[in-house]
Amino acid sequence: MARYKATLEYDGTDFAGFQRQVAEAGPTIQGELEAALARLNGGDPVTVIGAGRTDSGVHATGQVIAFNLEWSHGPETLARALNANLPRTIAARDVSDCEAGFHPRFSASGRRYRYSIYNAPTRSPLRERFAWRAWPKLEVAALQAASGQLIGRRDFGTFGTAPEAGGHTLRTVREARWSGPDEDETFNFYIEADAFLYRMVRSLVGTLKLVGSGDWSPADFESAMAAADRRQSATPAPPNGLCLIEVIY
Amino acid sequence: MARYKATLEYDGTDFAGFQRQVAEAGPTIQGELEAALARLNGGDPVTVIGAGRTDSGVHATGQVIAFNLEWSHGPETLARALNANLPRTIAARDVSDCEAGFHPRFSASGRRYRYSIYNAPTRSPLRERFAWRAWPKLEVAALQAASGQLIGRRDFGTFGTAPEAGGHTLRTVREARWSGPDEDETFNFYIEADAFLYRMVRSLVGTLKLVGSGDWSPADFESAMAAADRRQSATPAPPNGLCLIEVIY
Repeated sequence: MARYKATLEYDGTDFAGFQRQVAEAGPTIQGELEAALARLNGGDPVTVIGAGRTDSGVHATGQVIAFNLEWSHGPETLARALNANLPRTIAARDVSDCEAGFHPRFSASGRRYRYSIYNAPTRSPLRERFAWRAWPKLEVAALQAASGQLIGRRDFGTFGTAPEAGGHTLRTVREARWSGPDEDETFNFYIEADAFLYRMVRSLVGTLKLVGSGDWSPADFESAMAAADRRQSATPAPPNGLCLIEVIY
Repeated sequence: MARYKATLEYDGTDFAGFQRQVAEAGPTIQGELEAALARLNGGDPVTVIGAGRTDSGVHATGQVIAFNLEWSHGPETLARALNANLPRTIAARDVSDCEAGFHPRFSASGRRYRYSIYNAPTRSPLRERFAWRAWPKLEVAALQAASGQLIGRRDFGTFGTAPEAGGHTLRTVREARWSGPDEDETFNFYIEADAFLYRMVRSLVGTLKLVGSGDWSPADFESAMAAADRRQSATPAPPNGLCLIEVIY
Protein backbone atom coordinates (compact mmCIF):
# COMPACT_ATOMS: atom_id res chain seq x y z
CA MET A 1 0.00 0.00 0.00
CA ALA A 2 1.53 3.33 -1.08
CA ARG A 3 0.44 6.89 -0.39
CA TYR A 4 -0.31 9.22 -3.32
CA LYS A 5 -0.66 12.97 -3.59
CA ALA A 6 -2.55 14.76 -6.37
CA THR A 7 -3.29 18.34 -7.42
CA LEU A 8 -6.92 18.86 -8.38
CA GLU A 9 -8.76 21.28 -10.61
CA TYR A 10 -12.53 21.43 -10.39
CA ASP A 11 -15.53 23.46 -11.43
CA GLY A 12 -17.41 23.57 -8.13
CA THR A 13 -20.67 24.93 -9.57
CA ASP A 14 -22.65 21.72 -9.35
CA PHE A 15 -21.10 20.32 -6.16
CA ALA A 16 -22.12 20.65 -2.52
CA GLY A 17 -18.51 21.55 -1.66
CA PHE A 18 -15.39 19.45 -1.22
CA GLN A 19 -16.32 17.49 1.87
CA ARG A 20 -18.33 14.25 1.68
CA GLN A 21 -21.85 14.75 3.08
CA VAL A 22 -25.11 12.93 3.50
CA ALA A 23 -26.37 12.02 0.03
CA GLU A 24 -29.26 14.51 0.09
CA ALA A 25 -26.85 17.46 0.16
CA GLY A 26 -25.79 16.60 -3.39
CA PRO A 27 -22.57 15.31 -4.95
CA THR A 28 -19.26 16.41 -3.42
CA ILE A 29 -15.71 16.50 -4.77
CA GLN A 30 -14.50 14.11 -2.07
CA GLY A 31 -17.41 11.76 -2.76
CA GLU A 32 -16.65 11.65 -6.50
CA LEU A 33 -12.94 11.04 -5.85
CA GLU A 34 -13.61 8.27 -3.36
CA ALA A 35 -16.08 6.59 -5.73
CA ALA A 36 -13.56 6.76 -8.59
CA LEU A 37 -10.72 5.41 -6.42
CA ALA A 38 -12.89 2.60 -5.04
CA ARG A 39 -13.45 1.46 -8.65
CA LEU A 40 -9.65 1.32 -9.08
CA ASN A 41 -9.40 -0.58 -5.78
CA GLY A 42 -11.59 -3.56 -6.64
CA GLY A 43 -14.60 -1.95 -4.99
CA ASP A 44 -12.95 -1.49 -1.59
CA PRO A 45 -13.35 1.98 -0.06
CA VAL A 46 -10.53 4.56 -0.27
CA THR A 47 -10.47 7.63 1.97
CA VAL A 48 -9.39 10.93 0.42
CA ILE A 49 -8.02 13.81 2.53
CA GLY A 50 -8.07 17.32 1.07
CA ALA A 51 -6.04 20.42 1.98
CA GLY A 52 -9.02 22.77 1.96
CA ARG A 53 -12.72 22.18 2.53
CA THR A 54 -13.99 24.45 -0.21
CA ASP A 55 -17.65 25.49 0.11
CA SER A 56 -20.49 24.61 -2.19
CA GLY A 57 -19.94 26.32 -5.56
CA VAL A 58 -16.27 27.21 -4.93
CA HIS A 59 -13.69 26.18 -7.55
CA ALA A 60 -10.09 25.00 -7.40
CA THR A 61 -7.09 24.84 -9.67
CA GLY A 62 -4.66 23.93 -6.89
CA GLN A 63 -6.49 21.78 -4.34
CA VAL A 64 -4.19 19.04 -2.95
CA ILE A 65 -5.35 15.61 -1.84
CA ALA A 66 -3.76 12.42 -0.52
CA PHE A 67 -4.93 8.81 -0.28
CA ASN A 68 -3.54 5.32 0.24
CA LEU A 69 -3.96 2.78 -2.56
CA GLU A 70 -2.67 -0.61 -3.64
CA TRP A 71 -1.54 0.20 -7.19
CA SER A 72 1.23 -1.39 -9.22
CA HIS A 73 1.14 0.54 -12.53
CA GLY A 74 2.86 3.79 -11.55
CA PRO A 75 1.51 7.30 -10.87
CA GLU A 76 1.05 8.33 -14.52
CA THR A 77 -1.22 5.41 -15.24
CA LEU A 78 -3.00 6.10 -11.96
CA ALA A 79 -3.65 9.70 -13.08
CA ARG A 80 -5.14 8.50 -16.37
CA ALA A 81 -7.28 5.84 -14.69
CA LEU A 82 -8.48 8.28 -12.03
CA ASN A 83 -9.41 10.95 -14.60
CA ALA A 84 -11.21 8.38 -16.73
CA ASN A 85 -13.40 7.61 -13.70
CA LEU A 86 -14.12 11.21 -12.68
CA PRO A 87 -16.80 13.56 -14.05
CA ARG A 88 -15.48 16.11 -16.56
CA THR A 89 -15.83 18.85 -13.95
CA ILE A 90 -13.01 17.32 -11.84
CA ALA A 91 -9.46 16.57 -12.98
CA ALA A 92 -6.34 15.27 -11.25
CA ARG A 93 -3.70 17.51 -12.84
CA ASP A 94 -0.75 15.79 -11.19
CA VAL A 95 -0.37 12.50 -9.31
CA SER A 96 2.80 11.39 -7.51
CA ASP A 97 3.72 9.07 -4.66
CA CYS A 98 4.48 10.76 -1.36
CA GLU A 99 5.69 9.97 2.16
CA ALA A 100 3.38 7.98 4.41
CA GLY A 101 3.29 10.93 6.82
CA PHE A 102 2.15 13.51 4.26
CA HIS A 103 -1.14 15.13 5.27
CA PRO A 104 -2.56 17.68 2.78
CA ARG A 105 -4.04 19.88 5.51
CA PHE A 106 -1.69 19.52 8.50
CA SER A 107 1.49 19.55 6.37
CA ALA A 108 0.46 22.77 4.56
CA SER A 109 2.07 26.07 5.57
CA GLY A 110 -0.27 28.24 3.51
CA ARG A 111 -3.13 28.54 1.02
CA ARG A 112 -3.67 30.95 -1.80
CA TYR A 113 -7.08 31.96 -3.20
CA ARG A 114 -8.20 34.11 -6.11
CA TYR A 115 -11.53 35.92 -6.10
CA SER A 116 -12.76 37.30 -9.47
CA ILE A 117 -15.23 40.16 -9.87
CA TYR A 118 -16.73 41.00 -13.26
CA ASN A 119 -17.42 44.73 -12.87
CA ALA A 120 -20.17 45.54 -15.35
CA PRO A 121 -23.84 46.61 -15.31
CA THR A 122 -25.18 43.58 -17.24
CA ARG A 123 -24.61 39.91 -16.51
CA SER A 124 -22.25 37.97 -18.76
CA PRO A 125 -23.22 34.31 -19.25
CA LEU A 126 -19.71 33.38 -20.41
CA ARG A 127 -18.06 34.87 -17.32
CA GLU A 128 -20.43 34.37 -14.46
CA ARG A 129 -19.69 30.76 -13.73
CA PHE A 130 -16.29 31.90 -12.46
CA ALA A 131 -16.79 35.54 -11.42
CA TRP A 132 -19.12 37.62 -9.29
CA ARG A 133 -20.86 40.25 -11.41
CA ALA A 134 -20.90 43.40 -9.31
CA TRP A 135 -21.86 46.99 -10.05
CA PRO A 136 -21.35 50.03 -9.64
CA LYS A 137 -17.85 50.65 -10.94
CA LEU A 138 -15.10 49.75 -8.46
CA GLU A 139 -11.97 51.81 -7.83
CA VAL A 140 -8.88 49.65 -7.64
CA ALA A 141 -6.97 52.24 -5.56
CA ALA A 142 -9.59 52.07 -2.80
CA LEU A 143 -9.61 48.26 -2.93
CA GLN A 144 -5.80 48.18 -2.61
CA ALA A 145 -5.74 50.70 0.26
CA ALA A 146 -8.17 48.68 2.36
CA SER A 147 -6.52 45.36 1.46
CA GLY A 148 -3.17 46.62 2.72
CA GLN A 149 -4.65 46.52 6.23
CA LEU A 150 -4.98 42.74 6.02
CA ILE A 151 -1.25 41.97 5.92
CA GLY A 152 0.34 40.41 9.02
CA ARG A 153 -0.86 38.47 12.05
CA ARG A 154 -4.31 39.94 12.65
CA ASP A 155 -7.63 39.03 14.22
CA PHE A 156 -10.05 38.26 11.37
CA GLY A 157 -13.03 37.60 13.63
CA THR A 158 -15.14 40.07 11.65
CA PHE A 159 -14.67 38.03 8.49
CA GLY A 160 -15.09 34.44 9.55
CA THR A 161 -15.37 31.80 12.22
CA ALA A 162 -12.80 29.25 13.34
CA PRO A 163 -13.29 25.76 11.91
CA GLU A 164 -13.30 24.25 15.43
CA ALA A 165 -15.73 25.41 18.17
CA GLY A 166 -14.11 28.10 20.31
CA GLY A 167 -11.02 28.31 18.11
CA HIS A 168 -9.22 31.64 17.88
CA THR A 169 -9.59 33.88 14.84
CA LEU A 170 -5.99 35.06 14.38
CA ARG A 171 -4.50 34.37 10.97
CA THR A 172 -1.36 35.55 9.18
CA VAL A 173 -2.02 37.08 5.78
CA ARG A 174 1.10 37.27 3.59
CA GLU A 175 -0.41 38.68 0.41
CA ALA A 176 -3.64 40.59 -0.33
CA ARG A 177 -3.66 42.44 -3.60
CA TRP A 178 -5.97 43.29 -6.48
CA SER A 179 -5.16 43.18 -10.17
CA GLY A 180 -7.31 44.71 -12.88
CA PRO A 181 -9.58 45.78 -14.26
CA ASP A 182 -8.28 44.05 -17.39
CA GLU A 183 -9.79 44.46 -20.87
CA ASP A 184 -12.51 42.00 -19.79
CA GLU A 185 -13.57 44.37 -16.96
CA THR A 186 -12.49 41.74 -14.44
CA PHE A 187 -10.75 42.35 -11.10
CA ASN A 188 -8.83 39.54 -9.41
CA PHE A 189 -8.13 39.54 -5.68
CA TYR A 190 -5.21 37.32 -4.61
CA ILE A 191 -4.91 36.42 -0.95
CA GLU A 192 -2.43 34.10 0.76
CA ALA A 193 -2.48 33.19 4.45
CA ASP A 194 -1.21 30.45 6.76
CA ALA A 195 -4.83 29.30 7.07
CA PHE A 196 -8.30 30.76 6.58
CA LEU A 197 -11.39 31.04 8.73
CA TYR A 198 -14.72 29.69 7.52
CA ARG A 199 -16.16 32.14 4.91
CA MET A 200 -13.16 34.46 5.35
CA VAL A 201 -12.29 35.22 1.71
CA ARG A 202 -15.91 35.71 0.66
CA SER A 203 -16.64 37.96 3.66
CA LEU A 204 -13.51 40.01 2.97
CA VAL A 205 -14.45 40.44 -0.69
CA GLY A 206 -18.08 41.30 0.11
CA THR A 207 -16.83 44.00 2.51
CA LEU A 208 -13.96 45.26 0.33
CA LYS A 209 -16.45 45.70 -2.52
CA LEU A 210 -18.21 48.36 -0.39
CA VAL A 211 -14.89 50.21 -0.20
CA GLY A 212 -14.28 49.82 -3.94
CA SER A 213 -17.70 51.27 -4.76
CA GLY A 214 -17.19 54.21 -2.37
CA ASP A 215 -19.98 53.18 0.03
CA TRP A 216 -17.37 52.66 2.75
CA SER A 217 -14.10 54.55 3.34
CA PRO A 218 -10.90 52.58 4.04
CA ALA A 219 -11.29 53.88 7.64
CA ASP A 220 -14.77 52.27 7.86
CA PHE A 221 -13.14 49.03 6.76
CA GLU A 222 -10.43 49.42 9.39
CA SER A 223 -12.92 49.89 12.23
CA ALA A 224 -15.07 46.96 11.08
CA MET A 225 -11.93 44.82 11.12
CA ALA A 226 -10.78 46.15 14.51
CA ALA A 227 -14.15 45.19 16.02
CA ALA A 228 -13.42 41.47 15.43
CA ASP A 229 -17.18 41.08 15.34
CA ARG A 230 -18.84 38.90 12.71
CA ARG A 231 -21.81 41.32 12.54
CA GLN A 232 -19.50 44.06 11.18
CA SER A 233 -18.92 42.13 7.95
CA ALA A 234 -20.87 42.81 4.78
CA THR A 235 -22.76 39.93 3.18
CA PRO A 236 -20.20 37.40 1.90
CA ALA A 237 -19.52 37.54 -1.83
CA PRO A 238 -21.07 34.58 -3.70
CA PRO A 239 -19.06 31.34 -4.08
CA ASN A 240 -18.78 31.35 -7.89
CA GLY A 241 -15.98 33.97 -7.89
CA LEU A 242 -13.74 32.01 -5.52
CA CYS A 243 -10.99 29.59 -6.50
CA LEU A 244 -8.39 27.78 -4.36
CA ILE A 245 -5.32 28.24 -6.55
CA GLU A 246 -2.44 26.93 -4.45
CA VAL A 247 -1.57 25.03 -1.28
CA ILE A 248 1.92 25.76 0.00
CA TYR A 249 4.14 23.16 1.76
CA MET B 1 -45.92 48.00 -32.38
CA ALA B 2 -42.18 48.77 -32.69
CA ARG B 3 -39.28 46.64 -33.83
CA TYR B 4 -36.35 46.00 -31.49
CA LYS B 5 -32.85 44.73 -32.02
CA ALA B 6 -30.67 43.14 -29.31
CA THR B 7 -27.17 41.73 -28.98
CA LEU B 8 -27.07 38.45 -27.11
CA GLU B 9 -24.49 36.62 -25.07
CA TYR B 10 -25.13 33.00 -24.15
CA ASP B 11 -23.50 29.90 -22.75
CA GLY B 12 -24.77 27.32 -25.25
CA THR B 13 -23.68 24.27 -23.25
CA ASP B 14 -27.11 23.24 -22.07
CA PHE B 15 -29.12 24.31 -25.15
CA ALA B 16 -30.13 22.39 -28.27
CA GLY B 17 -28.85 25.30 -30.39
CA PHE B 18 -30.35 28.68 -31.24
CA GLN B 19 -33.31 27.60 -33.32
CA ARG B 20 -36.65 26.64 -31.77
CA GLN B 21 -37.29 22.89 -32.09
CA VAL B 22 -39.75 20.24 -31.03
CA ALA B 23 -39.76 20.15 -27.25
CA GLU B 24 -38.00 16.77 -27.00
CA ALA B 25 -34.81 18.21 -28.50
CA GLY B 26 -34.34 20.27 -25.34
CA PRO B 27 -34.44 23.99 -24.60
CA THR B 28 -33.25 26.42 -27.29
CA ILE B 29 -32.07 30.02 -27.17
CA GLN B 30 -34.91 31.15 -29.45
CA GLY B 31 -37.44 29.24 -27.35
CA GLU B 32 -36.24 30.89 -24.11
CA LEU B 33 -36.30 34.35 -25.71
CA GLU B 34 -39.77 33.88 -27.12
CA ALA B 35 -41.08 32.60 -23.78
CA ALA B 36 -39.56 35.60 -21.95
CA LEU B 37 -40.95 38.09 -24.50
CA ALA B 38 -44.40 36.50 -24.42
CA ARG B 39 -44.45 37.15 -20.66
CA LEU B 40 -43.73 40.82 -21.39
CA ASN B 41 -46.46 40.77 -24.05
CA GLY B 42 -49.39 39.74 -21.86
CA GLY B 43 -48.97 36.11 -22.85
CA ASP B 44 -49.27 36.71 -26.59
CA PRO B 45 -46.59 35.03 -28.72
CA VAL B 46 -43.60 37.01 -30.00
CA THR B 47 -41.41 35.71 -32.84
CA VAL B 48 -37.65 36.18 -32.54
CA ILE B 49 -35.35 36.17 -35.59
CA GLY B 50 -31.64 35.52 -35.09
CA ALA B 51 -28.65 36.36 -37.29
CA GLY B 52 -27.01 32.94 -36.91
CA ARG B 53 -28.47 29.53 -36.17
CA THR B 54 -25.75 28.39 -33.80
CA ASP B 55 -25.55 24.61 -33.23
CA SER B 56 -26.22 22.77 -30.01
CA GLY B 57 -23.48 23.60 -27.50
CA VAL B 58 -22.15 26.64 -29.41
CA HIS B 59 -21.81 29.96 -27.54
CA ALA B 60 -22.27 33.59 -28.51
CA THR B 61 -21.13 36.97 -27.31
CA GLY B 62 -22.39 38.82 -30.39
CA GLN B 63 -25.53 37.09 -31.67
CA VAL B 64 -28.05 39.62 -32.99
CA ILE B 65 -31.83 39.21 -32.82
CA ALA B 66 -34.90 41.26 -33.76
CA PHE B 67 -38.55 41.09 -32.74
CA ASN B 68 -41.72 43.21 -32.81
CA LEU B 69 -43.29 44.18 -29.51
CA GLU B 70 -45.85 46.55 -28.06
CA TRP B 71 -43.79 48.25 -25.35
CA SER B 72 -44.10 51.75 -23.96
CA HIS B 73 -41.31 51.95 -21.35
CA GLY B 74 -38.24 52.42 -23.58
CA PRO B 75 -35.44 50.05 -24.65
CA GLU B 76 -33.46 50.23 -21.38
CA THR B 77 -36.40 49.06 -19.30
CA LEU B 78 -37.10 46.42 -21.94
CA ALA B 79 -33.53 45.12 -21.58
CA ARG B 80 -33.92 44.84 -17.80
CA ALA B 81 -37.33 43.17 -18.05
CA LEU B 82 -36.10 40.74 -20.71
CA ASN B 83 -33.00 39.78 -18.70
CA ALA B 84 -35.09 39.31 -15.58
CA ASN B 85 -37.15 36.75 -17.51
CA LEU B 86 -34.26 34.85 -19.10
CA PRO B 87 -32.17 32.04 -17.57
CA ARG B 88 -28.78 33.19 -16.28
CA THR B 89 -27.08 31.49 -19.24
CA ILE B 90 -28.61 34.02 -21.69
CA ALA B 91 -28.28 37.82 -21.53
CA ALA B 92 -29.42 40.66 -23.78
CA ARG B 93 -26.35 42.90 -23.68
CA ASP B 94 -27.89 45.72 -25.66
CA VAL B 95 -31.45 46.52 -26.74
CA SER B 96 -32.44 49.33 -29.10
CA ASP B 97 -35.30 50.13 -31.43
CA CYS B 98 -34.60 49.59 -35.14
CA GLU B 99 -36.20 50.09 -38.54
CA ALA B 100 -39.18 47.95 -39.42
CA GLY B 101 -37.19 46.46 -42.32
CA PHE B 102 -34.22 45.32 -40.25
CA HIS B 103 -33.66 41.55 -40.56
CA PRO B 104 -30.79 40.16 -38.44
CA ARG B 105 -29.87 37.51 -41.02
CA PHE B 106 -30.66 39.08 -44.41
CA SER B 107 -29.38 42.55 -43.44
CA ALA B 108 -26.02 41.16 -42.22
CA SER B 109 -22.94 41.52 -44.43
CA GLY B 110 -20.72 39.25 -42.34
CA ARG B 111 -20.23 37.11 -39.27
CA ARG B 112 -17.22 36.61 -37.06
CA TYR B 113 -16.50 33.51 -34.98
CA ARG B 114 -13.82 32.57 -32.48
CA TYR B 115 -12.76 28.98 -31.89
CA SER B 116 -10.67 28.26 -28.75
CA ILE B 117 -8.35 25.29 -28.31
CA TYR B 118 -6.82 24.47 -24.93
CA ASN B 119 -3.61 22.74 -25.97
CA ALA B 120 -2.60 20.54 -23.03
CA PRO B 121 -2.31 16.83 -22.20
CA THR B 122 -4.80 16.85 -19.28
CA ARG B 123 -8.32 18.21 -19.24
CA SER B 124 -8.99 21.47 -17.43
CA PRO B 125 -12.45 21.68 -15.81
CA LEU B 126 -12.29 25.49 -15.59
CA ARG B 127 -11.54 25.87 -19.30
CA GLU B 128 -13.34 23.11 -21.10
CA ARG B 129 -16.79 24.60 -21.12
CA PHE B 130 -15.47 27.17 -23.60
CA ALA B 131 -12.49 25.46 -25.28
CA TRP B 132 -11.64 22.19 -27.04
CA ARG B 133 -8.87 20.37 -25.18
CA ALA B 134 -6.59 18.99 -27.86
CA TRP B 135 -3.20 17.30 -27.75
CA PRO B 136 -0.38 16.87 -29.04
CA LYS B 137 1.25 20.27 -29.05
CA LEU B 138 0.17 22.47 -31.96
CA GLU B 139 2.51 24.68 -33.99
CA VAL B 140 1.02 28.09 -34.59
CA ALA B 141 3.16 28.69 -37.72
CA ALA B 142 1.66 25.62 -39.42
CA LEU B 143 -1.86 26.67 -38.38
CA GLN B 144 -1.32 30.16 -39.82
CA ALA B 145 0.17 28.86 -43.08
CA ALA B 146 -2.82 26.62 -43.78
CA SER B 147 -5.32 29.27 -42.67
CA GLY B 148 -3.90 31.76 -45.15
CA GLN B 149 -5.35 29.57 -47.91
CA LEU B 150 -8.88 30.33 -46.72
CA ILE B 151 -8.86 34.03 -47.57
CA GLY B 152 -10.96 35.19 -50.52
CA ARG B 153 -13.95 33.87 -52.49
CA ARG B 154 -13.42 30.11 -52.34
CA ASP B 155 -15.37 26.88 -52.56
CA PHE B 156 -15.67 25.53 -49.01
CA GLY B 157 -17.56 22.38 -50.02
CA THR B 158 -15.04 20.22 -48.12
CA PHE B 159 -15.88 21.96 -44.87
CA GLY B 160 -19.64 22.30 -44.86
CA THR B 161 -22.98 22.11 -46.60
CA ALA B 162 -25.21 24.93 -47.80
CA PRO B 163 -28.11 25.76 -45.48
CA GLU B 164 -30.61 25.34 -48.36
CA ALA B 165 -30.83 22.09 -50.40
CA GLY B 166 -28.69 22.36 -53.55
CA GLY B 167 -27.20 25.71 -52.49
CA HIS B 168 -23.68 26.54 -53.65
CA THR B 169 -20.74 26.31 -51.27
CA LEU B 170 -18.82 29.46 -52.24
CA ARG B 171 -18.12 31.85 -49.39
CA THR B 172 -15.88 34.90 -48.99
CA VAL B 173 -13.53 34.67 -46.02
CA ARG B 174 -12.06 38.04 -45.02
CA GLU B 175 -10.06 37.03 -41.96
CA ALA B 176 -8.67 33.69 -40.76
CA ARG B 177 -5.93 33.95 -38.17
CA TRP B 178 -4.70 32.27 -35.03
CA SER B 179 -3.54 33.93 -31.85
CA GLY B 180 -1.68 32.17 -29.05
CA PRO B 181 -0.70 30.09 -27.35
CA ASP B 182 -1.09 32.51 -24.46
CA GLU B 183 0.07 31.83 -20.89
CA ASP B 184 -3.05 29.71 -20.46
CA GLU B 185 -1.92 27.38 -23.30
CA THR B 186 -4.94 28.51 -25.32
CA PHE B 187 -5.08 29.16 -29.07
CA ASN B 188 -7.85 31.32 -30.54
CA PHE B 189 -8.87 31.07 -34.19
CA TYR B 190 -10.70 34.15 -35.55
CA ILE B 191 -12.61 33.78 -38.80
CA GLU B 192 -14.83 36.31 -40.56
CA ALA B 193 -16.82 35.63 -43.73
CA ASP B 194 -19.84 36.99 -45.57
CA ALA B 195 -21.69 33.85 -44.47
CA PHE B 196 -20.86 30.34 -43.30
CA LEU B 197 -21.84 26.86 -44.42
CA TYR B 198 -23.36 24.43 -41.95
CA ARG B 199 -20.56 23.05 -39.70
CA MET B 200 -17.94 25.12 -41.57
CA VAL B 201 -15.95 26.58 -38.66
CA ARG B 202 -15.88 23.33 -36.71
CA SER B 203 -14.85 21.31 -39.80
CA LEU B 204 -12.12 23.84 -40.61
CA VAL B 205 -10.77 23.73 -37.06
CA GLY B 206 -10.90 19.93 -36.90
CA THR B 207 -8.89 19.77 -40.14
CA LEU B 208 -6.49 22.63 -39.30
CA LYS B 209 -5.69 20.88 -36.03
CA LEU B 210 -4.19 18.01 -38.09
CA VAL B 211 -1.90 20.55 -39.74
CA GLY B 212 -0.99 22.12 -36.38
CA SER B 213 -0.04 18.74 -34.93
CA GLY B 214 2.08 17.84 -37.99
CA ASP B 215 -0.16 14.95 -39.10
CA TRP B 216 -0.98 16.87 -42.29
CA SER B 217 1.20 19.28 -44.28
CA PRO B 218 -0.24 22.63 -45.43
CA ALA B 219 -0.19 21.04 -48.94
CA ASP B 220 -2.43 18.19 -47.69
CA PHE B 221 -4.81 20.82 -46.41
CA GLU B 222 -4.73 22.63 -49.75
CA SER B 223 -5.64 19.49 -51.72
CA ALA B 224 -8.43 18.57 -49.30
CA MET B 225 -9.85 22.05 -49.77
CA ALA B 226 -9.43 21.97 -53.56
CA ALA B 227 -11.42 18.73 -53.70
CA ALA B 228 -14.56 20.55 -52.46
CA ASP B 229 -15.63 17.16 -51.16
CA ARG B 230 -17.15 16.83 -47.68
CA ARG B 231 -15.42 13.46 -47.22
CA GLN B 232 -12.00 15.18 -47.31
CA SER B 233 -12.70 17.02 -44.05
CA ALA B 234 -11.47 15.77 -40.70
CA THR B 235 -14.02 15.19 -37.95
CA PRO B 236 -15.49 18.57 -36.94
CA ALA B 237 -14.09 20.05 -33.74
CA PRO B 238 -16.57 19.88 -30.84
CA PRO B 239 -19.09 22.71 -30.35
CA ASN B 240 -17.85 23.89 -26.92
CA GLY B 241 -14.87 25.80 -28.39
CA LEU B 242 -17.01 27.83 -30.82
CA CYS B 243 -18.43 31.29 -30.17
CA LEU B 244 -20.29 33.70 -32.50
CA ILE B 245 -18.59 36.95 -31.54
CA GLU B 246 -19.92 39.49 -34.05
CA VAL B 247 -22.50 40.06 -36.76
CA ILE B 248 -21.54 42.80 -39.20
CA TYR B 249 -24.08 45.13 -40.86
